[in-house]
Amino acid sequence: MTIASFAFELIARQGRARAGVIHTPHGPILTPIFAPVGTQATVKAVTPAQLEEHGVTLVLSNTYHLYLRPGAELIAELGGLHRFMSWPHPILTDSGGFQVFSLSENRRVDDEGVTFRSHIDGSLHRLTPEIAIEVQEKLGADIIMAFDECAPPYDRAYNERALERTHRWAERCLKAKTRSDQALFGIVQGGIFLDLREQSARFLTGLGFPGYAIGGLSVGETKAEMHAVLELVDGLLPEDKPRYLMGVGTPQDIINGILRGVDMFDCVLPTRLARHHAAMTRTGRLNMMNAAYARDSRPIDPECTCYTCRHFTRAYLRHLIVAREMLAATLLSIHNITTLITLVSEARSAILAGRFEQFAAEFFAAQETLPS
Amino acid sequence: MTIASFAFELIARQGRARAGVIHTPHGPILTPIFAPVGTQATVKAVTPAQLEEHGVTLVLSNTYHLYLRPGAELIAELGGLHRFMSWPHPILTDSGGFQVFSLSENRRVDDEGVTFRSHIDGSLHRLTPEIAIEVQEKLGADIIMAFDECAPPYDRAYNERALERTHRWAERCLKAKTRSDQALFGIVQGGIFLDLREQSARFLTGLGFPGYAIGGLSVGETKAEMHAVLELVDGLLPEDKPRYLMGVGTPQDIINGILRGVDMFDCVLPTRLARHHAAMTRTGRLNMMNAAYARDSRPIDPECTCYTCRHFTRAYLRHLIVAREMLAATLLSIHNITTLITLVSEARSAILAGRFEQFAAEFFAAQETLPS
Ligand SMILES: [Zn+2]
Ligand SMILES: [Zn+2]
Repeated sequence: MTIASFAFELIARQGRARAGVIHTPHGPILTPIFAPVGTQATVKAVTPAQLEEHGVTLVLSNTYHLYLRPGAELIAELGGLHRFMSWPHPILTDSGGFQVFSLSENRRVDDEGVTFRSHIDGSLHRLTPEIAIEVQEKLGADIIMAFDECAPPYDRAYNERALERTHRWAERCLKAKTRSDQALFGIVQGGIFLDLREQSARFLTGLGFPGYAIGGLSVGETKAEMHAVLELVDGLLPEDKPRYLMGVGTPQDIINGILRGVDMFDCVLPTRLARHHAAMTRTGRLNMMNAAYARDSRPIDPECTCYTCRHFTRAYLRHLIVAREMLAATLLSIHNITTLITLVSEARSAILAGRFEQFAAEFFAAQETLPS
Repeated sequence: MTIASFAFELIARQGRARAGVIHTPHGPILTPIFAPVGTQATVKAVTPAQLEEHGVTLVLSNTYHLYLRPGAELIAELGGLHRFMSWPHPILTDSGGFQVFSLSENRRVDDEGVTFRSHIDGSLHRLTPEIAIEVQEKLGADIIMAFDECAPPYDRAYNERALERTHRWAERCLKAKTRSDQALFGIVQGGIFLDLREQSARFLTGLGFPGYAIGGLSVGETKAEMHAVLELVDGLLPEDKPRYLMGVGTPQDIINGILRGVDMFDCVLPTRLARHHAAMTRTGRLNMMNAAYARDSRPIDPECTCYTCRHFTRAYLRHLIVAREMLAATLLSIHNITTLITLVSEARSAILAGRFEQFAAEFFAAQETLPS
């Protein structure tokens, strides 16, 4: 199927690292890109205007959550997810697979799909590849995901069975898709098993998706295992399609991903850490509740240009946290998202300028210095 | 004492209603004005940038809360309250009196001051007029308040005793004041008793404050009693000084206050209601959690120009509330504050144009129409 208004341009490479542009019906995405997560049609505690102001272009939202509440029909009736959450830029929805396997209760998988109980009210639901596509078509994101089965990374037998199912479901998702203005990505699975990963990458590539996600990573495996999978998959996936590493969001994992050919990342980490009082920097995390910051007149990160760092001291942020003020989560979320947006943006510039190796080397060298 | 950079210009009158400008070291305040409350050095759930964008010029902060946490010394050390909370525009601090009498535990009043226990950790503290001024000088607001004793509105004997004390404390506050860049306002007290109110207004006017607050209203008395006090006081306070009705924040009370010569208002109402899912309009309140809004594609108020009404539907706001998303409080606070800022701004234009009577008449006529 031809995808109207969707295309990937690979602009520059350095080693495996790639800089490109993904064209979508809601504007271009410059890659590498980090997407903050708006689980329930809102990036928690941050307005769309604040996201825009801080350079966010792509937001991820969760099909599982929106399907349960407020429901895909309601969002469709209100003009789709872009209008519903007032985000006129690109949106990506996952398929619901990951949440069904991690959040729902009493789930039962069969070859047709998954029956599960809502984590909200215990009500009974069923997702199949066809329903996952139908729901995602109602939501109307620019990039949508195939419905997959997520297996624990070290369980070989489980991964073999799940991979077979994931591949059948990928075919069914392609077949079920009707909208021409959404790009459906396949998801490479296979746990830590390189032969399964290879089988998955080859099978999905054969189906000709406009983009490929790498799923089932950052779920408990070692960094070395994650990197081995990324390096393998980099050599197997078509060069002219974007690659998306799902659920990855530490600065270190992002740079390691870019070094191994990944174009897209998403993670709840920046906003989740913010709600737990942690400020992210490239070299570590600051617990802003720490008494050491009580009289600290510096911004979180003197080099950060975000609204929070331009206007507020560590002492003020700590005061907000101690006083249990909601503004703390907003200001820390803005900073943490900016940290990752700035990181991928600088990585992109470095790739375009042919100095990404140096950029990455300096990034990892700085890790040894603990933040003050 | 001459107050550097502080002056009030009365620009226009219509009946008792006044339009003016209060000049402060942090810029002009166009009156009538409504000030949102930033109790703990933050207007809850709203950034200073969002306040600026929605036309807020004056923010109130609470001396009692800041004195207890994070402490006035810390704020002074960090450059004062304006820098601490990143609000470069005018700030008003109350004296702590009202909170000591409403929030603290085991308080004991004597002629010298008040001994009380913190509502946060039970620790023992003492505020006197001198300490209240010292704390407010450390905070560094543009407008500061005399330390007063707040009495229940209907208790005549209590009001007589408290008024005597409040007047002695007003003299001591004036004497204790050392900074020349802050304007200290006296607070007219006296409950519902017009003779006490008259006595208070005359006594405080004799002391020559640069502005006058009317305290102890909107605390349980009837509207008729509140209006009688305002009308009396309007005739007694000097025309060339601003009058500030403390703690008042419904659209109806604000218009009634302006009709009776009040220039300044503050209230926690818009942000508190927002956290309880209520959207304010000029004619009433909408409970945004109401199932009736589940599929409502209209903004809260089609005539409102705030960020929330320009971008989000009632259905989306309801979804955020049902899903317990923090963004709900932010978006509703922005709307509620804008409702009051727009109201006082239009009232000002009407006074300047000599059509405030008509404006007020239309405002009250519209009250009979329930919001849909
Ligand atoms: Zn920052
Ligand atoms: Zn509004």
